[in-house]
Amino acid sequence: MPISITAAFDFTLDNPTDLILQFEAAAIPEQTILSTRTTLSCGEDCVRVPAHEAIGERVLVHAQGRFDVRYEALVEVNRLAPDLAGLAQLSPHELPGDPLEYLLDSTYCPADRLQSFAEDEFGGTTGGDRVLAIHDWIARHFTYEAGSSNSTTTALDSFVERRGICRDYAHVLISLARASTIPARYVSCFSPGVTPQDFHALAEVFLADDTIEGGGAWYIVDATGMAKPQDTVKIGVGRDAADVSFLTSFGPSHFGDKTVAVREVSAR
Amino acid sequence: MPISITAAFDFTLDNPTDLILQFEAAAIPEQTILSTRTTLSCGEDCVRVPAHEAIGERVLVHAQGRFDVRYEALVEVNRLAPDLAGLAQLSPHELPGDPLEYLLDSTYCPADRLQSFAEDEFGGTTGGDRVLAIHDWIARHFTYEAGSSNSTTTALDSFVERRGICRDYAHVLISLARASTIPARYVSCFSPGVTPQDFHALAEVFLADDTIEGGGAWYIVDATGMAKPQDTVKIGVGRDAADVSFLTSFGPSHFGDKTVAVREVSAR
Amino acid sequence: MPISITAAFDFTLDNPTDLILQFEAAAIPEQTILSTRTTLSCGEDCVRVPAHEAIGERVLVHAQGRFDVRYEALVEVNRLAPDLAGLAQLSPHELPGDPLEYLLDSTYCPADRLQSFAEDEFGGTTGGDRVLAIHDWIARHFTYEAGSSNSTTTALDSFVERRGICRDYAHVLISLARASTIPARYVSCFSPGVTPQDFHALAEVFLADDTIEGGGAWYIVDATGMAKPQDTVKIGVGRDAADVSFLTSFGPSHFGDKTVAVREVSAR
Amino acid sequence: MPISITAAFDFTLDNPTDLILQFEAAAIPEQTILSTRTTLSCGEDCVRVPAHEAIGERVLVHAQGRFDVRYEALVEVNRLAPDLAGLAQLSPHELPGDPLEYLLDSTYCPADRLQSFAEDEFGGTTGGDRVLAIHDWIARHFTYEAGSSNSTTTALDSFVERRGICRDYAHVLISLARASTIPARYVSCFSPGVTPQDFHALAEVFLADDTIEGGGAWYIVDATGMAKPQDTVKIGVGRDAADVSFLTSFGPSHFGDKTVAVREVSAR
Repeated sequence: MPISITAAFDFTLDNPTDLILQFEAAAIPEQTILSTRTTLSCGEDCVRVPAHEAIGERVLVHAQGRFDVRYEALVEVNRLAPDLAGLAQLSPHELPGDPLEYLLDSTYCPADRLQSFAEDEFGGTTGGDRVLAIHDWIARHFTYEAGSSNSTTTALDSFVERRGICRDYAHVLISLARASTIPARYVSCFSPGVTPQDFHALAEVFLADDTIEGGGAWYIVDATGMAKPQDTVKIGVGRDAADVSFLTSFGPSHFGDKTVAVREVSAR
Repeated sequence: MPISITAAFDFTLDNPTDLILQFEAAAIPEQTILSTRTTLSCGEDCVRVPAHEAIGERVLVHAQGRFDVRYEALVEVNRLAPDLAGLAQLSPHELPGDPLEYLLDSTYCPADRLQSFAEDEFGGTTGGDRVLAIHDWIARHFTYEAGSSNSTTTALDSFVERRGICRDYAHVLISLARASTIPARYVSCFSPGVTPQDFHALAEVFLADDTIEGGGAWYIVDATGMAKPQDTVKIGVGRDAADVSFLTSFGPSHFGDKTVAVREVSAR
Repeated sequence: MPISITAAFDFTLDNPTDLILQFEAAAIPEQTILSTRTTLSCGEDCVRVPAHEAIGERVLVHAQGRFDVRYEALVEVNRLAPDLAGLAQLSPHELPGDPLEYLLDSTYCPADRLQSFAEDEFGGTTGGDRVLAIHDWIARHFTYEAGSSNSTTTALDSFVERRGICRDYAHVLISLARASTIPARYVSCFSPGVTPQDFHALAEVFLADDTIEGGGAWYIVDATGMAKPQDTVKIGVGRDAADVSFLTSFGPSHFGDKTVAVREVSAR
Repeated sequence: MPISITAAFDFTLDNPTDLILQFEAAAIPEQTILSTRTTLSCGEDCVRVPAHEAIGERVLVHAQGRFDVRYEALVEVNRLAPDLAGLAQLSPHELPGDPLEYLLDSTYCPADRLQSFAEDEFGGTTGGDRVLAIHDWIARHFTYEAGSSNSTTTALDSFVERRGICRDYAHVLISLARASTIPARYVSCFSPGVTPQDFHALAEVFLADDTIEGGGAWYIVDATGMAKPQDTVKIGVGRDAADVSFLTSFGPSHFGDKTVAVREVSAR
């Protein structure tokens, strides 16, 4: 069933300011963009470039004053729900080059410092089983609490406080996967199951793919449990939220309103 | 004049552990590898993959017990010392796609939080002049102090304490450049001017290149003043030290000795 | 002229929870409580104990559910505005014992790490002149911005970001004073000049008192410039905000509304 | 059996610098100082003041250049090993005023952020039983590792990394006790069981004392397991290490050597 997406937000810039926006469904094989319409209030100075890993696009803007973004799309998701149980993990030296950077520490995911905990808590498991164990541990111990984190909150803060929102759940899962030598990346996305409706975030882990000789694939895992692989519309990927923020501003900006509506539609 | 490099280090791993090593001069146009020899004490399980931006190589290892690395090379550097003064900076929407990620926050360079300071302190300057102003500000206010930082020290820590070693100087310069909307990346390297001799780190900033219509280039800048562009042998680049550590260990490791000797040799 | 104070706030506790409240004008020689009325919605389990330095009182509560606090008072302030210029600072070994703890690092004021900056920026000054230099530096470089900080923001965060609210201004001034070997403490207070009206915070520094042989005294200094010594009604003092929060909760609490109104009244 | 203590350390100060030293056995009822000798290389400007809670003394010094400290003492410890099991905890409103400040956050013990974890992990227990559960949890999950922490390491860092030295073990135990609404303080001390021999640190918790109607007492608990209450010679107490450092320097200092020898002596 197609997913209908409507998103709108606005902000105000006191001075001429550079911005990076990334808020649209990515055109990638696993999801088909049936229709799309983006309205930006900037008449000039808008450029589009491929985003991280060439998944989705970044809109680069130089603007001042009030800025409005409105986005509508209809997307068919072709992705299946994988079964992570039993999937093997690949050693760094077995990995294709690309996933390697997703083993390293990043801004919000200082995974290195969680190695002792990961070994202590999940020591008997590997691969998909370990990812499931991490997922369950977060689900069991964390409280989803709007307003409990902010743009400086790292995975270590969330790990200590055991609460957060989708970005924090994703950062903790990513950090614990990396601390287990499993490449993990951050996915910004839309999904109809998210309550309250908003931009969403979850993780992808790189594990062996049984259908490919010696190969691997990225698998979606949502520590909040709200999004399912088969209804997740990806916007972009990155090492963590710093890479795929829907709004990065190189100067002061005053955020206004934001509304997001995502739902399954029974017929096109 | 060619640069002669000798580096050796060892460490011990209690358990079978995955490692990423990156410690050799990169084979890139701006420097010619005249000769090279690497000896690793691991007989098996060593794989080489291109490193970040395909600059240099990462050696992926799965090993246990005592591990020895020995590296010797002779490198001719073809790079000239640029004059940054007067070079323009490119707006994000004027940038080619690749340098864009070097505007974003990274593990050790949470640049976003330094925007107010950068505007306050360096507000009247842009481009190469701003980079020089940042360079001079660091040179004037920071103390180079071995042992004053560790692997968790961020650019914000160094900014507050006003001291550090080469990695910290580079992280602060990179953060202040990004806070000024100038792409900046971390370069691990060898240079004969480094005292005491060791692996070295400095920054590169992306600024307009007058010789290319609408184009730009990466320019070396060393906040410590010890390395010169024309004698710097690059090992690798990344967003910060997390991307180009000479040793990343996915498990406990006990570091042993390290010796580095870099010198200009008058004749081949 | 007397100061009239009205303050009211409420919160809800899901479970039986221990609380520490400190929100009333302190009965100390420098301010006379003309009238006071406190209404707490807890019928039982309320105990009062002297607060830090026996300045003001803490109300200890064990409660559950909705909790309302209402406070009204009329206070005459007998304090004069001091002239800090030229006041000497006392070496630690010249200090009476009590101010000594206000030289040490505390939760929100890790002053030790700012020693280099303090010496670098304010090196030519001591005592009251240094405090004034610190005050002016903050006034010149910081932006007062509601919502820019939260309960985990330290003086180092504020120092880096150069913005905050009254608590942050106080924490930075306190930290820079301690880094200059001048005892400094945090004062929670009411003042009619605070916009928007709310609980306020400022700093006190311990400097030589010319009227006392070999002695010293605490002097008010407000980095935000909103409160004056002669209209400041002290609630309590401590090393930093952690010691004199108006509400400390040993369990989850949901904060409701808060209103504060402080004004000079022309006649009693 | 008396405890014999010898401690010596030295450091060098480039400029005239203020120092606070606290390194001698405290003269308190629970331990008898049989003999003591302190030699400081400062001829002038040494002042002694009572330390935190009037337990032990701080030596205040203004000095420059090389500074030597030598201390010898023989101390009889009169303290018994308490049995914490079953001891009740006192609600904040039942506490005498003094222990109250040991419920609040401090520099190295941001306990507030560990409330969810403490409730999640130790929820079924209270009082002495909870302290024992915290002690056992640390003993089970932490690795004692010299060099794994430094002077900026907080209890949250140690909690994440699950390793540290005595100060870190004490900070984590203190933070988890406070997060459980049990007053906890930091004790610097000497003990013969410490390996390698050095200044030591442990925690004290305030719990009900069955021998006093409505009263409470401080009980020693050492998360490292190395010191026993009956052989611990207290130097001082505080909220955390920031309050009872053996050396606090208000300016750059270069630490030299340190030797500590503590042993039980069979006869005086």
